[in-house]
Parts: sequence; structure tokens; C-alpha cells
Amino acid sequence: MSTKKNVAIIGSGNWGSAIARIVGDNVKKLPSYHDIVKIWVYEETLKDGRKLSEVINEEHENVKYLPGYKFPSNVVAVTDIVEASKDADILVFVMPHQFLERSLLPLKGKLKPGAFGVSLIKGFHIPPGGGIRLISCLINEILDITVHVLMGANLAPEVAEGKFCETTIGVRDINHMKSMKDLFQTDNFRVVVVDDADAVEVCGALKNIVGVGAGFVDGLGYGDNTKAAVIRLGLMEMIKFTEVFYPGAKLSTFFESCGVADLVTTCYGGRNRRVAEAVVKHGKSIATLEKEMLDGQRLQGPETAAEVNYMLKEKQMEARFPLFTAIHRICEQELPPSEMIDCIKVHPEHLYEPSFLQDLEEGKLEV
Amino acid sequence: MSTKKNVAIIGSGNWGSAIARIVGDNVKKLPSYHDIVKIWVYEETLKDGRKLSEVINEEHENVKYLPGYKFPSNVVAVTDIVEASKDADILVFVMPHQFLERSLLPLKGKLKPGAFGVSLIKGFHIPPGGGIRLISCLINEILDITVHVLMGANLAPEVAEGKFCETTIGVRDINHMKSMKDLFQTDNFRVVVVDDADAVEVCGALKNIVGVGAGFVDGLGYGDNTKAAVIRLGLMEMIKFTEVFYPGAKLSTFFESCGVADLVTTCYGGRNRRVAEAVVKHGKSIATLEKEMLDGQRLQGPETAAEVNYMLKEKQMEARFPLFTAIHRICEQELPPSEMIDCIKVHPEHLYEPSFLQDLEEGKLEV
Repeated sequence: MSTKKNVAIIGSGNWGSAIARIVGDNVKKLPSYHDIVKIWVYEETLKDGRKLSEVINEEHENVKYLPGYKFPSNVVAVTDIVEASKDADILVFVMPHQFLERSLLPLKGKLKPGAFGVSLIKGFHIPPGGGIRLISCLINEILDITVHVLMGANLAPEVAEGKFCETTIGVRDINHMKSMKDLFQTDNFRVVVVDDADAVEVCGALKNIVGVGAGFVDGLGYGDNTKAAVIRLGLMEMIKFTEVFYPGAKLSTFFESCGVADLVTTCYGGRNRRVAEAVVKHGKSIATLEKEMLDGQRLQGPETAAEVNYMLKEKQMEARFPLFTAIHRICEQELPPSEMIDCIKVHPEHLYEPSFLQDLEEGKLEV
Repeated sequence: MSTKKNVAIIGSGNWGSAIARIVGDNVKKLPSYHDIVKIWVYEETLKDGRKLSEVINEEHENVKYLPGYKFPSNVVAVTDIVEASKDADILVFVMPHQFLERSLLPLKGKLKPGAFGVSLIKGFHIPPGGGIRLISCLINEILDITVHVLMGANLAPEVAEGKFCETTIGVRDINHMKSMKDLFQTDNFRVVVVDDADAVEVCGALKNIVGVGAGFVDGLGYGDNTKAAVIRLGLMEMIKFTEVFYPGAKLSTFFESCGVADLVTTCYGGRNRRVAEAVVKHGKSIATLEKEMLDGQRLQGPETAAEVNYMLKEKQMEARFPLFTAIHRICEQELPPSEMIDCIKVHPEHLYEPSFLQDLEEGKLEV
């Protein structure tokens, strides 16, 4: 029996397809991996009557979600998720999170012993009754496997084009560090592995809230200084949120691609920013603009802002997160966008100087 | 004899004038300060034949460098730098750094005992023979006073307009922390004071190098992912440079307005970015574009890149700073802009995972 490892990609949207191109090429170069990479495709009939999975296997291209970019021929579409996953030693989860739970249930108890996963899915899972759960933890709960995370400033079309970028992998088992790096890194897709998976994953969800705030600033015409301040205060609230709800994170993780780089991209490009700008400029609700601008797709920022607000309210910590709170209230139309800046003028970050605080309290400083 | 403190602003360009508006308003509210704030004006004759200092004192407006914004009437222009400074307890230095040394020499030995300063001047001073000196240290050397620094994402016209922003003050004497905050903070100009002046000042100089790199990426049409990676790697090199040449800095300082916020503004707006983009698009040299786009003014990024490169070469550390090095070489036309990304593909940040490094070296990890 071969000891070579198998990789399966669970999901085949544009990000899943872009990452399958990388993984497909990499396994061919790695002697400890089988060449074939199965990619689970949720079957669809295309407009011309053909099946998506058949087109992928014949033309080596996801003509619906990543047209124009070929898969290496060792990437094979499989429409049965159990079939796609059963031999896999490493599973790469990359699908819209609303379908995740339902899709994974058939896999329960059917994975290879010792298999582990990596989640590329951004956002939080909301368990019934509210609150927040990390997607990687949800997968772990359903499948009882270790799940690492991969997040970064990685717009799928640019990754597919082979444009240089970086990404961050947060591992939950440091023995998988090297295999994670080997599987994903290329000359143009540079991987930094950190031992801080929670923080990496939280960044991937929270950045969208800040992106909405950046869009409001753009809509209000406030200029570069104000936008920089909102991005920075957003980053501070991301760090604080992680400290409160996922203690043990490292400050340095927020300097990785998953942190500051992805945040900046989200606040200058990105649809959360774009729709939020339109909210201010056209005075329409987010729901209306989702219909008009996104073909009815839900925007992740306002949803995440609501989930985060639920957590903050429960801990009576809204005042410590004035930017997140203001953005949520504007999304809910409880507050006009023009009041966002007033809400952060006296931000906790401005009230004390962390490094001095203790000395001050102990009466050591003359100020 | 009054124990009230006097403040003088040394410099009256657009940033000096914008900050004089803030300081002028603030001292009126602070009982421990004299109302009058003297601002040193390098006298000029305007096109209509009037003297700049006279116009400022009659119309309370710097019609040449910050037209459209009035000074509070307690801001008084003084053309003799000794006269402007001699009673000052706090001196705010804000002038182009090429004039600094010459301008300050007459003040030598003439300041009030106990006076201290704060520098708003970005960039390094280059002593004869090469190398780098912090501007605040140069002022300290000439005048023998403590010099704090104030840096942040603070485009002067937006500050003058009263648009919300943040700034960072790095103090060299924590007993001045409160007076620094009181003097500069307003509802729309939010101050965070940190005990890490070197890092604050270094950020203000190095960000311009990264801004040039961001401009090259824009000119090359590389998209959001690549730009985010260049900004992040630039930030990493800023941190590393500070660690090497100014040891003792705190990582958290790079999350302040002087760090990530000012860097982002420089890489999306800012003239370093704009000229560097034009270098790629029009194939012209920086010197040519300085003439065409900046009326002959020198761009700070390429100069700082050259100064930094001198330091790195001396320590044989160019390879540890591949982005700074590539940007410098492109500015010097030793390398075409299209090769910048090749130079950072195998960046030291991608070669090891800091948190694992020690364990790896000690043979504790299986990887």
C-alpha cells in the first residue's frame, strides 16, 4: 500500500479553483504526494446543457467560476463529496460558509484516520441561539479532524493570474507546518506559517466590518487622514476583539498578510467598501444595494458586524468597540452614516497610553 | 514673574501653519499657558509686494502656504528666530529639513533653561561623510534640549480643514507626556503618546521608501494583492531596520498612526507614489519627473532610500532588506522597475517562521 499522501479540495468556486491550480501543480513536484488532486464540485448544469464537472474534466477549466484559467490535468472533478474525500490525507475546505454544515454531514466518520484539514473560508459560523463560532472549529466538531486556516490578501482572480502575493497559514498542530507550506507555496504565492490559527481566522472575518467603515468614510468624502484613522482604529478593535474572545493571540500575527495586508486591500478595493460608499452617496439601505449591486448576494461585513455586536452586547463591551458598534448601528439604520466619526472621536485608544497606564495608576509618574 | 508657559512654532509652511492653528486654539483653553504663540516666519515678499509676516499679522492667514484658513489672532508672526524662541518653554520645529541646521545655529545657547522641543520634521539628517541621524537628535545636539517627535497620517490641508485624524507623539521624557497631549489634541486631531520616540521618527522617514515601491506596483499594473504584499513587506523592513539601528523599539508603535496609518496613506495617496508610478508608465527618470511634476522639488523617498542603502551596505545587510534595496536600485536606474517583484519573491520574511525558528534550531520540532 502506497504511503503517498492524497489531497482533496472541497469546493470549486473561484477561490477554490484558483487554489486547486496551485495545489495541483505543487503535488506534482512533491515526491510524498499522489499526483491526482480530487476537487469536489457541487454539480451544476451550465447554460449550454453540459455538466460543470464534465467540462472541468474534459477542458480542465472551471468555465463558470474561473473562466480563462486551466487546471493542471491532475486536478480531477468529483461530484460526490464522500468519493472526493475518502482517501484524502489533507482536505482543503473552500466553499461558501452557508453550505458548509449541510455539505460536510455525509463525511462524518468516513475520513481516513490521521486526515487533517485547512479552511480557506472567511467569516464566522453562527450557531443556533446566536454567538460566534470559528469555521475551522465547526469543521473540527463535525468531522473530528484538526483544521488549520489559510487567509491573506488573496483576491482569487489575481492569484489565478499568478500575480505576486502573500498569504498566512495559521496551524493548530506545528507538526503540519512544513506540509502546509509545501502544499501552497509557489514563487508568486508566498506563505508565512504562524502558530496562531484563531487570530488568523478572526482577522479574515473582522476585516469586512472595517471595510464597511472605510466605505462610509469614502462616501462622506472625508479624505486620506480620516480613512487612515478609521482603518487603524479598526485594526485596534480587531486586535482587542481577539484578545477578549480568543486570548493568547500574538500581536505579530496582525502584521501578517491575514492582518494588515488583507485589511488594507478590503478598505481600498473590495465590495464591502463599495456598497457602503453607495449607502452614503445614494441614501439607500444595504438590503436594497445588495439587490442592485450584488445581484441579491449578501454582503459579509454587515452580517459580521451584527454577529460581533451580539457578542459585545452580551459582555457589555460595546463602548470598548465604538467603531464596530457604530458601523453595526449604521448598517441597521439606527444611526446616520454622518455620525460614525462622532462615535470614534473619543476612542478608548485615545484615552490612555498603554505603556504608561500602569505607572500612572501606581502613582509613579508625574504628568 | 509669570509661571505661565510660552510656546513657539519654528516654521510656517503648510504643516507649520496647520499645527499653529491647533496650538493657538489650545493654549487659550489651557490656564498654564500664555495666550500668545509666536510663529517664526522666514520672511518673503509676496507677488503683490507685501511681506508674508505682515500679512499673517494683519489678516491672520498664511496666504502663501495655507490659504483659506485663518490663524486664531493669538498666533503672532515673528521674523527673527531668536526673538521668536527666546521666551519659549516649548518649541515646535516644523520646517524643511535642509534649512534646519542653518536656521537653528543662531539659537545656540539662547534658549530658556528647561525649554524642550517637539519635531514634526520627517526624514533623516545626513551628516557629512554619510550615514543617518535622526532630526530630533540633530536638534538636540545643536540646542542641547530634549526633543520629542510628532508623526502620523496628517496631510496638512486635511488637518487644517478639521477633518478627523490621529497622530502619534513619541516622547523622550515621560514627564512631558501630558503637556504634549494637551498642546496638540483637539476633538478632530487625536493624539496617542508613546514612550518610543526613535521608532516614531524612523517610521516618518522610511514610509516614503515604501511609497515609492507602491508607486512602481501601480505603474506596473500588478493589482491589489501585490500592492498589499509590497506594503506589508515594506512595513516588515521598517520594523527590522528599527530593530537593527535603533534597538529597543516596541512592536506596538508600528500600529500607531505614525506606523501603519501613515504608511497606508503614503502608499495610496502621496507624491512619492505618484511620481514612482509615472517612472514606470512614462519610462522617465525620477530627476526628470521631479522637474515636470514637482516644479523641481526633490522627492523624499528616493533620497531616503539612498541614505538607508548606505547604512545597509556598511553593515552588509542589503540582502536582509530586499525591498528597500530594490527600490533604491530602481531609483538609481541600476535595475528596471519590472524586476522589483523578482527581488522580493524570496524575502527573508518567507524563509522562516519567527515563532518556530528557535524551536527548530533547538531540534525540538519535527517539520
